[in-house]
Amino acid sequence: MTGTTKSGTAERAPRAGRPGYDQGSVLEIAVQLFNEHGYDATSMGQLAERLGTSKSAIYHHFTSKEEVLALALDHALGGLEAILEKPLARTGAPDASLTFVLREAVVVLCERLPSVTLLLRVRGNTDVERQALERRRAFDRTVADLVDAARAEGTLRRDIDSRTTTRLLFGMINSIVEWYRPGGPITPDQLAADVLAVALDGLRSH
Amino acid sequence: MTGTTKSGTAERAPRAGRPGYDQGSVLEIAVQLFNEHGYDATSMGQLAERLGTSKSAIYHHFTSKEEVLALALDHALGGLEAILEKPLARTGAPDASLTFVLREAVVVLCERLPSVTLLLRVRGNTDVERQALERRRAFDRTVADLVDAARAEGTLRRDIDSRTTTRLLFGMINSIVEWYRPGGPITPDQLAADVLAVALDGLRSH
Repeated sequence: MTGTTKSGTAERAPRAGRPGYDQGSVLEIAVQLFNEHGYDATSMGQLAERLGTSKSAIYHHFTSKEEVLALALDHALGGLEAILEKPLARTGAPDASLTFVLREAVVVLCERLPSVTLLLRVRGNTDVERQALERRRAFDRTVADLVDAARAEGTLRRDIDSRTTTRLLFGMINSIVEWYRPGGPITPDQLAADVLAVALDGLRSH
Repeated sequence: MTGTTKSGTAERAPRAGRPGYDQGSVLEIAVQLFNEHGYDATSMGQLAERLGTSKSAIYHHFTSKEEVLALALDHALGGLEAILEKPLARTGAPDASLTFVLREAVVVLCERLPSVTLLLRVRGNTDVERQALERRRAFDRTVADLVDAARAEGTLRRDIDSRTTTRLLFGMINSIVEWYRPGGPITPDQLAADVLAVALDGLRSH
Protein backbone atom coordinates (compact mmCIF):
# COMPACT_ATOMS: atom_id res chain seq x y z
CA MET A 1 0.00 0.00 0.00
CA THR A 2 2.77 2.39 0.83
CA GLY A 3 5.00 1.35 -2.04
CA THR A 4 7.93 0.73 0.28
CA THR A 5 7.94 -3.02 -0.05
CA LYS A 6 10.82 -3.26 -2.47
CA SER A 7 13.15 -1.05 -0.49
CA GLY A 8 11.97 -2.67 2.76
CA THR A 9 12.93 -6.02 1.34
CA ALA A 10 16.29 -4.77 0.14
CA GLU A 11 17.12 -3.64 3.67
CA ARG A 12 16.53 -7.09 5.13
CA ALA A 13 19.33 -9.60 4.74
CA PRO A 14 17.97 -12.78 3.11
CA ARG A 15 18.81 -15.93 5.02
CA ALA A 16 22.05 -17.47 3.84
CA GLY A 17 21.66 -19.70 0.81
CA ARG A 18 18.07 -18.56 0.15
CA PRO A 19 17.95 -16.00 -2.58
CA GLY A 20 15.21 -13.37 -2.68
CA TYR A 21 12.43 -12.92 -0.17
CA ASP A 22 12.17 -14.16 3.39
CA GLN A 23 8.91 -15.49 4.84
CA GLY A 24 7.77 -12.14 6.21
CA SER A 25 8.22 -10.37 2.89
CA VAL A 26 6.38 -13.08 0.97
CA LEU A 27 3.56 -12.79 3.49
CA GLU A 28 3.41 -9.02 3.08
CA ILE A 29 3.10 -9.22 -0.71
CA ALA A 30 0.61 -12.08 -0.46
CA VAL A 31 -1.67 -10.04 1.82
CA GLN A 32 -1.49 -7.15 -0.66
CA LEU A 33 -2.56 -9.47 -3.49
CA PHE A 34 -5.35 -11.06 -1.43
CA ASN A 35 -6.69 -7.60 -0.60
CA GLU A 36 -6.50 -6.44 -4.22
CA HIS A 37 -8.03 -9.46 -5.93
CA GLY A 38 -9.62 -11.53 -3.17
CA TYR A 39 -8.09 -14.62 -1.57
CA ASP A 40 -9.97 -17.11 -3.75
CA ALA A 41 -9.01 -15.32 -6.97
CA THR A 42 -5.28 -15.16 -6.11
CA SER A 43 -3.05 -18.08 -7.12
CA MET A 44 0.41 -19.02 -5.89
CA GLY A 45 1.50 -18.47 -9.51
CA GLN A 46 0.35 -14.84 -9.36
CA LEU A 47 2.16 -14.43 -6.05
CA ALA A 48 5.37 -15.81 -7.59
CA GLU A 49 4.94 -13.48 -10.56
CA ARG A 50 4.49 -10.42 -8.32
CA LEU A 51 7.59 -11.43 -6.36
CA GLY A 52 9.57 -12.10 -9.51
CA THR A 53 10.43 -15.54 -8.21
CA SER A 54 9.33 -19.15 -8.71
CA LYS A 55 6.48 -21.01 -7.06
CA SER A 56 8.99 -23.45 -5.56
CA ALA A 57 10.76 -20.52 -3.88
CA ILE A 58 7.43 -19.69 -2.17
CA TYR A 59 6.77 -23.31 -1.23
CA HIS A 60 10.13 -23.16 0.51
CA HIS A 61 8.40 -20.92 3.08
CA PHE A 62 4.77 -22.10 2.96
CA THR A 63 3.18 -25.49 2.39
CA SER A 64 0.06 -24.03 0.76
CA LYS A 65 -1.87 -20.87 -0.05
CA GLU A 66 -4.07 -21.64 2.94
CA GLU A 67 -1.03 -21.56 5.23
CA VAL A 68 -0.22 -18.08 3.90
CA LEU A 69 -3.76 -17.02 4.75
CA ALA A 70 -3.59 -18.61 8.19
CA LEU A 71 -0.39 -16.75 9.07
CA ALA A 72 -1.74 -13.44 7.74
CA LEU A 73 -4.95 -13.75 9.77
CA ASP A 74 -2.96 -14.80 12.83
CA HIS A 75 -0.92 -11.60 12.51
CA ALA A 76 -4.11 -9.51 12.70
CA LEU A 77 -5.79 -11.57 15.41
CA GLY A 78 -2.62 -11.88 17.50
CA GLY A 79 -2.37 -8.09 17.64
CA LEU A 80 -5.97 -7.71 18.76
CA GLU A 81 -5.87 -10.56 21.28
CA ALA A 82 -2.67 -9.21 22.85
CA ILE A 83 -4.63 -6.08 23.84
CA LEU A 84 -6.98 -8.13 25.99
CA GLU A 85 -4.04 -9.73 27.83
CA LYS A 86 -2.71 -6.40 29.07
CA PRO A 87 -3.43 -5.48 32.70
CA LEU A 88 -5.23 -2.25 31.76
CA ALA A 89 -7.78 -4.30 29.80
CA ARG A 90 -8.44 -6.69 32.65
CA THR A 91 -8.41 -4.62 35.82
CA GLY A 92 -10.06 -1.44 36.99
CA ALA A 93 -13.43 0.06 36.08
CA PRO A 94 -15.15 -1.21 32.90
CA ASP A 95 -15.14 2.37 31.57
CA ALA A 96 -11.35 2.58 31.80
CA SER A 97 -10.81 -0.90 30.39
CA LEU A 98 -13.15 -0.21 27.46
CA THR A 99 -11.39 3.05 26.67
CA PHE A 100 -8.03 1.30 26.78
CA VAL A 101 -9.15 -1.59 24.55
CA LEU A 102 -10.78 0.67 21.95
CA ARG A 103 -7.73 2.94 21.78
CA GLU A 104 -5.35 0.01 21.41
CA ALA A 105 -7.62 -1.64 18.83
CA VAL A 106 -7.45 1.46 16.63
CA VAL A 107 -3.66 1.46 16.93
CA VAL A 108 -3.44 -2.24 15.95
CA LEU A 109 -5.78 -1.58 13.01
CA CYS A 110 -3.52 1.20 11.79
CA GLU A 111 -0.26 -0.63 12.39
CA ARG A 112 -1.43 -3.96 10.92
CA LEU A 113 -3.75 -2.45 8.33
CA PRO A 114 -3.24 -4.98 5.48
CA SER A 115 -3.76 -8.10 7.60
CA VAL A 116 -6.69 -6.58 9.52
CA THR A 117 -8.27 -5.58 6.18
CA LEU A 118 -7.96 -9.22 5.10
CA LEU A 119 -9.44 -10.39 8.41
CA LEU A 120 -12.47 -8.12 8.09
CA ARG A 121 -13.25 -9.58 4.65
CA VAL A 122 -13.15 -13.21 5.77
CA ARG A 123 -16.53 -14.86 5.25
CA GLY A 124 -15.87 -18.37 6.58
CA ASN A 125 -15.52 -20.41 3.40
CA THR A 126 -12.75 -22.70 4.72
CA ASP A 127 -11.61 -24.14 8.06
CA VAL A 128 -8.86 -21.53 8.31
CA GLU A 129 -11.39 -18.75 7.72
CA ARG A 130 -13.88 -20.23 10.18
CA GLN A 131 -11.23 -20.47 12.89
CA ALA A 132 -10.24 -16.86 12.26
CA LEU A 133 -13.90 -15.78 12.40
CA GLU A 134 -14.30 -17.60 15.72
CA ARG A 135 -11.27 -15.80 17.19
CA ARG A 136 -12.58 -12.49 15.84
CA ARG A 137 -15.98 -13.14 17.41
CA ALA A 138 -14.34 -13.97 20.75
CA PHE A 139 -12.53 -10.62 20.67
CA ASP A 140 -15.76 -8.83 19.74
CA ARG A 141 -17.62 -10.59 22.56
CA THR A 142 -15.06 -9.44 25.11
CA VAL A 143 -15.47 -5.84 23.94
CA ALA A 144 -19.27 -6.24 23.97
CA ASP A 145 -19.01 -7.49 27.58
CA LEU A 146 -17.03 -4.37 28.49
CA VAL A 147 -19.71 -2.21 26.83
CA ASP A 148 -22.37 -3.99 28.86
CA ALA A 149 -20.38 -3.59 32.08
CA ALA A 150 -19.89 0.13 31.40
CA ARG A 151 -23.63 0.45 30.79
CA ALA A 152 -24.36 -1.38 34.01
CA GLU A 153 -22.08 0.90 36.04
CA GLY A 154 -23.76 3.90 34.41
CA THR A 155 -20.82 5.37 32.49
CA LEU A 156 -22.31 4.51 29.07
CA ARG A 157 -25.81 5.59 28.08
CA ARG A 158 -28.52 2.95 28.27
CA ASP A 159 -31.15 4.49 26.01
CA ILE A 160 -29.60 2.77 22.99
CA ASP A 161 -29.88 -0.98 22.54
CA SER A 162 -26.71 -2.76 23.75
CA ARG A 163 -26.07 -4.67 20.51
CA THR A 164 -26.68 -1.58 18.40
CA THR A 165 -24.18 0.30 20.57
CA THR A 166 -21.49 -2.32 20.05
CA ARG A 167 -22.16 -2.63 16.33
CA LEU A 168 -21.98 1.11 15.71
CA LEU A 169 -18.74 1.24 17.71
CA PHE A 170 -17.17 -1.57 15.68
CA GLY A 171 -18.60 -0.09 12.50
CA MET A 172 -16.83 3.18 13.11
CA ILE A 173 -13.56 1.55 14.12
CA ASN A 174 -13.44 -1.12 11.39
CA SER A 175 -14.23 1.43 8.68
CA ILE A 176 -10.77 2.88 9.30
CA VAL A 177 -9.26 0.16 7.08
CA GLU A 178 -11.16 1.66 4.12
CA TRP A 179 -9.34 4.98 4.14
CA TYR A 180 -6.45 5.16 6.63
CA ARG A 181 -3.03 5.53 5.00
CA PRO A 182 -0.04 4.59 7.17
CA GLY A 183 2.66 7.22 7.04
CA GLY A 184 0.14 9.97 6.28
CA PRO A 185 -0.52 13.06 8.39
CA ILE A 186 -2.66 11.27 11.01
CA THR A 187 -0.72 9.08 13.42
CA PRO A 188 -2.34 5.95 14.88
CA ASP A 189 -2.33 7.58 18.33
CA GLN A 190 -4.05 10.70 16.99
CA LEU A 191 -6.68 8.65 15.18
CA ALA A 192 -7.28 6.56 18.30
CA ALA A 193 -7.85 9.75 20.30
CA ASP A 194 -10.25 11.07 17.62
CA VAL A 195 -12.24 7.82 17.50
CA LEU A 196 -12.62 7.81 21.29
CA ALA A 197 -13.64 11.47 21.29
CA VAL A 198 -16.34 10.88 18.66
CA ALA A 199 -17.56 7.57 20.08
CA LEU A 200 -17.74 8.70 23.69
CA ASP A 201 -18.57 12.41 23.47
CA GLY A 202 -19.99 12.81 19.97
CA LEU A 203 -19.44 15.42 17.31
CA ARG A 204 -21.64 18.13 18.77
CA SER A 205 -19.93 21.10 20.38
CA HIS A 206 -20.51 21.28 24.12
CA MET B 1 -32.46 -11.64 2.37
CA THR B 2 -35.92 -11.59 3.86
CA GLY B 3 -37.16 -14.68 2.06
CA THR B 4 -40.22 -12.84 0.81
CA THR B 5 -39.15 -12.69 -2.81
CA LYS B 6 -41.35 -15.50 -4.06
CA SER B 7 -44.51 -14.22 -2.45
CA GLY B 8 -43.60 -10.67 -3.45
CA THR B 9 -43.38 -11.86 -7.02
CA ALA B 10 -46.68 -13.69 -6.79
CA GLU B 11 -48.38 -10.50 -5.68
CA ARG B 12 -47.18 -8.58 -8.71
CA ALA B 13 -49.04 -9.20 -11.92
CA PRO B 14 -46.58 -10.24 -14.65
CA ARG B 15 -46.94 -8.22 -17.81
CA ALA B 16 -49.35 -9.84 -20.24
CA GLY B 17 -47.78 -12.53 -22.37
CA ARG B 18 -44.56 -12.66 -20.32
CA PRO B 19 -44.47 -15.63 -18.02
CA GLY B 20 -42.54 -15.58 -14.74
CA TYR B 21 -40.63 -12.69 -13.26
CA ASP B 22 -40.99 -9.01 -14.05
CA GLN B 23 -38.01 -6.67 -14.30
CA GLY B 24 -38.11 -5.62 -10.65
CA SER B 25 -38.10 -9.18 -9.38
CA VAL B 26 -35.22 -10.20 -11.64
CA LEU B 27 -33.31 -7.18 -10.38
CA GLU B 28 -33.95 -8.14 -6.75
CA ILE B 29 -32.63 -11.67 -7.22
CA ALA B 30 -29.67 -10.41 -9.27
CA VAL B 31 -28.63 -8.04 -6.48
CA GLN B 32 -28.84 -10.92 -3.99
CA LEU B 33 -26.55 -13.02 -6.20
CA PHE B 34 -24.10 -10.16 -6.79
CA ASN B 35 -23.87 -9.59 -3.03
CA GLU B 36 -23.39 -13.30 -2.32
CA HIS B 37 -20.79 -14.12 -4.96
CA GLY B 38 -19.54 -10.77 -6.26
CA TYR B 39 -20.66 -9.10 -9.48
CA ASP B 40 -17.74 -10.38 -11.57
CA ALA B 41 -18.21 -13.96 -10.42
CA THR B 42 -21.96 -14.02 -11.18
CA SER B 43 -23.09 -15.03 -14.67
CA MET B 44 -26.42 -14.49 -16.38
CA GLY B 45 -26.63 -18.31 -16.50
CA GLN B 46 -26.47 -18.47 -12.69
CA LEU B 47 -29.13 -15.78 -12.47
CA ALA B 48 -31.39 -17.76 -14.81
CA GLU B 49 -30.76 -20.89 -12.73
CA ARG B 50 -31.66 -19.12 -9.47
CA LEU B 51 -34.84 -17.79 -11.09
CA GLY B 52 -35.68 -21.17 -12.58
CA THR B 53 -36.03 -19.55 -15.98
CA SER B 54 -34.02 -19.21 -19.18
CA LYS B 55 -31.33 -16.69 -20.04
CA SER B 56 -33.48 -15.45 -22.92
CA ALA B 57 -36.27 -14.68 -20.44
CA ILE B 58 -33.81 -12.44 -18.58
CA TYR B 59 -32.56 -10.81 -21.77
CA HIS B 60 -36.19 -9.93 -22.39
CA HIS B 61 -35.80 -7.43 -19.52
CA PHE B 62 -32.09 -6.52 -19.68
CA THR B 63 -29.66 -6.17 -22.57
CA SER B 64 -26.66 -7.23 -20.48
CA LYS B 65 -25.40 -8.08 -17.00
CA GLU B 66 -23.94 -4.58 -16.87
CA GLU B 67 -27.41 -3.09 -17.40
CA VAL B 68 -28.64 -5.11 -14.40
CA LEU B 69 -25.81 -3.65 -12.34
CA ALA B 70 -26.49 -0.12 -13.60
CA LEU B 71 -30.16 -0.32 -12.59
CA ALA B 72 -29.32 -1.80 -9.19
CA LEU B 73 -26.79 0.92 -8.43
CA ASP B 74 -29.21 3.57 -9.68
CA HIS B 75 -31.77 2.29 -7.18
CA ALA B 76 -29.34 2.87 -4.32
CA LEU B 77 -28.00 6.19 -5.59
CA GLY B 78 -31.44 7.50 -6.53
CA GLY B 79 -32.59 6.97 -2.95
CA LEU B 80 -29.62 8.85 -1.53
CA GLU B 81 -29.72 11.68 -4.06
CA ALA B 82 -33.43 12.24 -3.46
CA ILE B 83 -32.60 13.15 0.15
CA LEU B 84 -30.49 16.07 -1.01
CA GLU B 85 -33.34 17.41 -3.15
CA LYS B 86 -35.69 17.76 -0.19
CA PRO B 87 -36.18 21.27 1.21
CA LEU B 88 -35.01 20.28 4.70
CA ALA B 89 -31.62 19.31 3.24
CA ARG B 90 -31.22 22.58 1.38
CA THR B 91 -32.56 25.29 3.62
CA GLY B 92 -32.06 26.32 7.24
CA ALA B 93 -29.03 25.97 9.48
CA PRO B 94 -26.27 23.52 8.45
CA ASP B 95 -26.76 21.69 11.75
CA ALA B 96 -30.43 21.00 10.98
CA SER B 97 -29.74 20.05 7.36
CA LEU B 98 -26.95 17.68 8.37
CA THR B 99 -29.14 16.00 10.97
CA PHE B 100 -31.91 15.61 8.40
CA VAL B 101 -29.58 14.17 5.73
CA LEU B 102 -27.91 11.71 8.09
CA ARG B 103 -31.25 10.49 9.44
CA GLU B 104 -32.69 10.02 5.95
CA ALA B 105 -29.50 8.34 4.74
CA VAL B 106 -29.80 5.70 7.48
CA VAL B 107 -33.43 5.10 6.50
CA VAL B 108 -32.50 4.71 2.79
CA LEU B 109 -29.70 2.31 3.78
CA CYS B 110 -32.15 0.18 5.75
CA GLU B 111 -34.92 0.29 3.17
CA ARG B 112 -32.66 -0.32 0.15
CA LEU B 113 -30.17 -2.52 1.97
CA PRO B 114 -29.31 -4.97 -0.87
CA SER B 115 -28.65 -2.31 -3.52
CA VAL B 116 -26.77 -0.04 -1.10
CA THR B 117 -24.65 -3.04 -0.05
CA LEU B 118 -23.81 -3.57 -3.72
CA LEU B 119 -23.01 0.13 -4.13
CA LEU B 120 -20.63 0.16 -1.17
CA ARG B 121 -18.65 -2.73 -2.69
CA VAL B 122 -18.19 -1.11 -6.09
CA ARG B 123 -14.49 -0.57 -6.84
CA GLY B 124 -14.64 1.12 -10.26
CA ASN B 125 -13.65 -1.71 -12.61
CA THR B 126 -16.05 -0.72 -15.42
CA ASP B 127 -17.67 2.44 -16.77
CA VAL B 128 -20.91 1.64 -14.99
CA GLU B 129 -19.04 1.23 -11.70
CA ARG B 130 -17.02 4.39 -12.24
CA GLN B 131 -20.17 6.42 -12.93
CA ALA B 132 -21.77 5.03 -9.78
CA LEU B 133 -18.64 5.83 -7.75
CA GLU B 134 -18.72 9.39 -9.10
CA ARG B 135 -22.36 9.81 -8.02
CA ARG B 136 -21.57 8.33 -4.62
CA ARG B 137 -18.64 10.72 -4.20
CA ALA B 138 -20.85 13.67 -5.13
CA PHE B 139 -23.31 12.64 -2.39
CA ASP B 140 -20.45 12.23 0.09
CA ARG B 141 -19.05 15.65 -0.84
CA THR B 142 -22.40 17.32 -0.18
CA VAL B 143 -22.52 15.73 3.27
CA ALA B 144 -18.90 16.70 3.89
CA ASP B 145 -19.79 20.30 2.96
CA LEU B 146 -22.63 20.23 5.51
CA VAL B 147 -20.19 18.92 8.13
CA ASP B 148 -17.81 21.77 7.31
CA ALA B 149 -20.62 24.33 7.46
CA ALA B 150 -21.77 22.98 10.85
CA ARG B 151 -18.19 23.22 12.10
CA ALA B 152 -17.92 26.78 10.82
CA GLU B 153 -21.12 27.84 12.59
CA GLY B 154 -19.82 26.19 15.77
CA THR B 155 -22.39 23.42 16.24
CA LEU B 156 -19.90 20.63 15.48
CA ARG B 157 -16.61 20.33 17.34
CA ARG B 158 -13.51 21.56 15.55
CA ASP B 159 -10.81 19.75 17.52
CA ILE B 160 -11.06 16.76 15.18
CA ASP B 161 -9.81 16.97 11.59
CA SER B 162 -12.68 17.65 9.18
CA ARG B 163 -12.00 14.70 6.87
CA THR B 164 -11.58 12.35 9.81
CA THR B 165 -14.93 13.56 11.16
CA THR B 166 -16.71 12.84 7.88
CA ARG B 167 -15.01 9.47 7.42
CA LEU B 168 -15.90 8.26 10.91
CA LEU B 169 -19.49 9.40 10.35
CA PHE B 170 -19.77 7.52 7.06
CA GLY B 171 -17.93 4.57 8.56
CA MET B 172 -20.51 4.23 11.29
CA ILE B 173 -23.46 4.69 8.94
CA ASN B 174 -22.22 2.47 6.10
CA SER B 175 -21.36 -0.35 8.51
CA ILE B 176 -25.10 -0.80 9.04
CA VAL B 177 -25.30 -2.85 5.83
CA GLU B 178 -23.10 -5.48 7.50
CA TRP B 179 -25.58 -6.40 10.20
CA TYR B 180 -28.97 -4.72 9.84
CA ARG B 181 -31.83 -7.12 9.13
CA PRO B 182 -34.99 -5.58 7.64
CA GLY B 183 -38.11 -6.71 9.44
CA GLY B 184 -36.18 -7.31 12.68
CA PRO B 185 -36.82 -5.61 16.02
CA ILE B 186 -35.09 -2.33 15.10
CA THR B 187 -37.04 -0.12 12.71
CA PRO B 188 -35.17 2.14 10.27
CA ASP B 189 -36.46 5.20 12.15
CA GLN B 190 -35.24 3.82 15.48
CA LEU B 191 -31.82 3.01 14.04
CA ALA B 192 -31.59 6.47 12.48
CA ALA B 193 -32.33 8.02 15.88
CA ASP B 194 -29.69 5.80 17.53
CA VAL B 195 -27.05 6.66 14.94
CA LEU B 196 -27.68 10.38 15.36
CA ALA B 197 -27.58 10.06 19.16
CA VAL B 198 -24.22 8.26 19.06
CA ALA B 199 -22.69 10.42 16.34
CA LEU B 200 -23.73 13.76 17.80
CA ASP B 201 -23.77 13.16 21.56
CA GLY B 202 -21.61 10.06 22.00
CA LEU B 203 -22.01 6.97 24.12
CA ARG B 204 -20.99 8.46 27.43
CA SER B 205 -23.70 9.16 29.99
CA HIS B 206 -24.17 12.85 30.64
